[in-house]
Amino acid sequence: MTDYIAPLRDMQFILKELAGLDAVAGLPGCEEASEDLVSAVLEEAGKFAAGVLAPINWQGDVQGCRLNADGSVSTPDGWQEAYTKFAESGWIGLSLPVEYGGQGLPKLLSTAVWEMWFSTNMAFTMLPQLNVGQAEALQIAATEEQKATWLTKVVSGEWASTMNLTEPQAGSDLAATRCKAEPQADGSYRLSGQKIFISYGEHELTPNIVHLVLARLPDAPAGVKGLSLFIVPKYLLDAAGNPGEKNDVRCISIEHKMGIHGSPTCTMSYGDNGGAVGWLVGQPNRGLEVMFIMMNEARFGVGVQGVGLGERAYQYALAYARDRVQGRDAVTGESGKPIIYHPDVKRMLLSMRARVMAMRGLLYTAASWFDIAHHSTDKAAADKAKRYVDLLMPVAKGWCTEVGNDVCDDAIQVFGGMGFVEETGIAQFFRDARIITIYEGTTGIQGNDLVGRKILREKGETLRELITELRVSVAELQADEALAGIGSGLADSVDALESATDWILANGKERLADVLAGAVPFLYLLGTVVGGWQMGRAAQAARRRLAAGEGDAVYLNSLVDLASFYMATVAPQAQANARTVKDAGGALTAFAEAAF
Amino acid sequence: MTDYIAPLRDMQFILKELAGLDAVAGLPGCEEASEDLVSAVLEEAGKFAAGVLAPINWQGDVQGCRLNADGSVSTPDGWQEAYTKFAESGWIGLSLPVEYGGQGLPKLLSTAVWEMWFSTNMAFTMLPQLNVGQAEALQIAATEEQKATWLTKVVSGEWASTMNLTEPQAGSDLAATRCKAEPQADGSYRLSGQKIFISYGEHELTPNIVHLVLARLPDAPAGVKGLSLFIVPKYLLDAAGNPGEKNDVRCISIEHKMGIHGSPTCTMSYGDNGGAVGWLVGQPNRGLEVMFIMMNEARFGVGVQGVGLGERAYQYALAYARDRVQGRDAVTGESGKPIIYHPDVKRMLLSMRARVMAMRGLLYTAASWFDIAHHSTDKAAADKAKRYVDLLMPVAKGWCTEVGNDVCDDAIQVFGGMGFVEETGIAQFFRDARIITIYEGTTGIQGNDLVGRKILREKGETLRELITELRVSVAELQADEALAGIGSGLADSVDALESATDWILANGKERLADVLAGAVPFLYLLGTVVGGWQMGRAAQAARRRLAAGEGDAVYLNSLVDLASFYMATVAPQAQANARTVKDAGGALTAFAEAAF
Repeated sequence: MTDYIAPLRDMQFILKELAGLDAVAGLPGCEEASEDLVSAVLEEAGKFAAGVLAPINWQGDVQGCRLNADGSVSTPDGWQEAYTKFAESGWIGLSLPVEYGGQGLPKLLSTAVWEMWFSTNMAFTMLPQLNVGQAEALQIAATEEQKATWLTKVVSGEWASTMNLTEPQAGSDLAATRCKAEPQADGSYRLSGQKIFISYGEHELTPNIVHLVLARLPDAPAGVKGLSLFIVPKYLLDAAGNPGEKNDVRCISIEHKMGIHGSPTCTMSYGDNGGAVGWLVGQPNRGLEVMFIMMNEARFGVGVQGVGLGERAYQYALAYARDRVQGRDAVTGESGKPIIYHPDVKRMLLSMRARVMAMRGLLYTAASWFDIAHHSTDKAAADKAKRYVDLLMPVAKGWCTEVGNDVCDDAIQVFGGMGFVEETGIAQFFRDARIITIYEGTTGIQGNDLVGRKILREKGETLRELITELRVSVAELQADEALAGIGSGLADSVDALESATDWILANGKERLADVLAGAVPFLYLLGTVVGGWQMGRAAQAARRRLAAGEGDAVYLNSLVDLASFYMATVAPQAQANARTVKDAGGALTAFAEAAF
Repeated sequence: MTDYIAPLRDMQFILKELAGLDAVAGLPGCEEASEDLVSAVLEEAGKFAAGVLAPINWQGDVQGCRLNADGSVSTPDGWQEAYTKFAESGWIGLSLPVEYGGQGLPKLLSTAVWEMWFSTNMAFTMLPQLNVGQAEALQIAATEEQKATWLTKVVSGEWASTMNLTEPQAGSDLAATRCKAEPQADGSYRLSGQKIFISYGEHELTPNIVHLVLARLPDAPAGVKGLSLFIVPKYLLDAAGNPGEKNDVRCISIEHKMGIHGSPTCTMSYGDNGGAVGWLVGQPNRGLEVMFIMMNEARFGVGVQGVGLGERAYQYALAYARDRVQGRDAVTGESGKPIIYHPDVKRMLLSMRARVMAMRGLLYTAASWFDIAHHSTDKAAADKAKRYVDLLMPVAKGWCTEVGNDVCDDAIQVFGGMGFVEETGIAQFFRDARIITIYEGTTGIQGNDLVGRKILREKGETLRELITELRVSVAELQADEALAGIGSGLADSVDALESATDWILANGKERLADVLAGAVPFLYLLGTVVGGWQMGRAAQAARRRLAAGEGDAVYLNSLVDLASFYMATVAPQAQANARTVKDAGGALTAFAEAAF
């Protein structure tokens, strides 16, 4: 197993130079996020990730979870200790409001911190990640009484959280939700129905679990506009507010999955014995809106999983490639050198590194837009940031998860036969990663969201604004002789983006099916361009620092080379994807379903 | 689990229209391969694959193999019965020489047949696949006496085969082989050393196992020119030629792998008790040449694994997408339709189908070149076929395994969350497939072979010849109005191929490291173009049949649409890869190793 080394230098560079940490720290409510504090938090998180989470990751995969005869679920050895430490250290509330026990730090900082959790133990981290998402939903929709009862415990991590959307017959289609909620005279509800794929639906790690459940009221309209949201605790609370009687909810099975074995994926049954007691959160039939807050948080978090897994896979592959001596230098014939000197191995490592940096640049920048959108008093800036976040959320989720998978795949390839042997440890990352393009909305769903809701609905307005901004970066890059090649690479991919955008806007009405057939290729295209933009910005920042004589010249120069490499290897996909966006729909629609 | 349906219509179309079955059947020695016989064999194989191999594939994954305390290795339930039936049915010798008990049928036919074995049970099929490779090596290098003793048993499958190359310290670098062979007075040798990653190194499925082992004679030169090849049986033969005394060879561990659990991957120890008895095959120090025969056979076979796994994954995904009702039609708003009607799901299925067909076209065509090279009395035709096979072997292995993996990955995505659940069955294909880009030479090794040995060494001669032939197809396609779009797509990718080829040839001497950094992207590029060529040829053949009123019009038209779809979705990768070939090396070489 390879030790985890928190990539603090890369993180700090991106936080400061690409995501504008200084500007974020200047926002009202974010003043605590001084450079010193940010450094201290990152360092502490790096230690926690390496010292507490990484060491139990592998055994979590090997042991997995178990549904016991009494209906309880056992999690792997070490989970309890790690969770207790995690909650006690206050990591859950890092960027949650101070009034509910959080630390109120910017999402920008917590994004970097959570990247480390995902790098070192994704299966474990899914548990506290649910608390964060649920806290954001409750904060917006819950009554003050509900907040006092539930939210503070969720923020502290004293109780765990779940998110109950999917049902067996419905899959990603929430309109088909059947779970029922009957109102009671005392203002509570009785829920009944089955939910599947519920992460951490049952476990013994906390004295209570707060389930957020989507269900239908008796008179609810059909479809997604008839969904309401309920708090359904595992244990009802006694008069003192402590967990008392067991509620009518149980885990009836756990999935045998390809990865994330340490995270129990439960089928939950509500109301087998008369109805699970729950309380309405927010307005009747408006549950989906609240759930979307939680889902958006979760989607962004899954994008961060992509970079986290990619970073760790890269570290594994790099350590192996530096250690493993094999073969001869293709040019000099010299033997006894490690495989990192084979051009193809170096290509894979550099490609992994470039894509990890591009994902990180995209995600941290998006996180800073979150903060600006929530905290800026400059209305125009806040509006723009919100529009950018909305536009790029499906890209942050869709592109970073697909790329994260690809990076893990490359890591296996660097290991060769050893990568296929489970004990090497890298296979776990590859298997764990395979879920991230699926849960919280598949890449296909992200593509439809991007093209349908985020582009066609507003006639491409925000995307056009982004393209204009991309052109500014292109011009700046081209104005610096040392960066002109990077500028041309970015320019070509922005051209591709613009032509695909024009095509989508021109055909969105008449040929919607054809446009949607290109939705995922378009998502890839936009991710490739925005990732490349961040790489170009990193190269510019590196050049500025070099000119000012600040920092490590080898590192700074390598960022310029890395951006050039990205333009040579990743950016050309933009043109390929643009062509697919425009040309695939015709052949696809023509192809008779009977001919499959 | 989805039933396997042998894709006989697609196979027959490709055999006849792309791979020239009629011409192959006209070669001396191949006359038996009449259309009727080919159909009968394919049908029989389809039944065997679906009825015998498919039903035990899943349990093989779940049960895996076990090294017992007595040193024996247990294989999964059903393996013994399936192997006995497989050998008794004569499948091993399908395209092996009649004089050693084979049926002498063309490789073209056996390629289609083996695709079915790989589709239905790759872990099992690796066992008889080793017999075929070993038989080809022994046929060329063994003495008549050795052939009489060993080869006939290998062809019949009475005894199993293995291939012992890799050692712990050496990995892919055979020059570092240390295993020793000491000559004895009786003409035999005593071998000692350790070999790793030996598929089916030990099992109880056959009364004997014939190991082919690479080792060094005492006076051998260093490097690959000091390797000799030895037959080392598990059991020494008694006077009657039957397995008798146990030889000094044993399995000391088996790997715990991500996939192909039904195939025991053994660490073999030779000579722990004085030396394993072996016999030299071929000339001293010329072992690698013979082993390369076996490896080339195995590499092509691994390429066929790519299409086999891809085909089955496609079948799984298609069945699920037709069955699973979810969501609403994005255009009409209609609900209650299966997910195949979602444009993005149809896109994935069509992309899977297109790539499976392209791989199949490439592999079957290459198989026909094998047959022509071996049997044609037209020396020019045989020479050309041999050069084409040599050039494209690394592409058949490298491209088809990478694409096969991608297709399995897409299948998981079509299943969504269900794809991540092991019981669905598709995860097994994804995990099994992950080894194929690694074993028998990683994609990186194939890339180096392609660019170094197959292109630079002969100054691109054969590749230029192929490009000329590609241009002829482009012109033919463009001359038919209905195929002109396909022709343009192919033309663009051939242009990309030619420009990347020019660049490689111009820089192969001065900038070898940069050229090798682009070797894998070039391999992808060549695979994409040759696959597209076959798709274009399929569209042409379909149009010919349509014009002649032969065959099912829906099917034939769908082949034209499929080729258009390939040009819209896969072919544009050619330009992206050409750019990477030319541009990646500079940034890669500039990037300081210390900056990783």
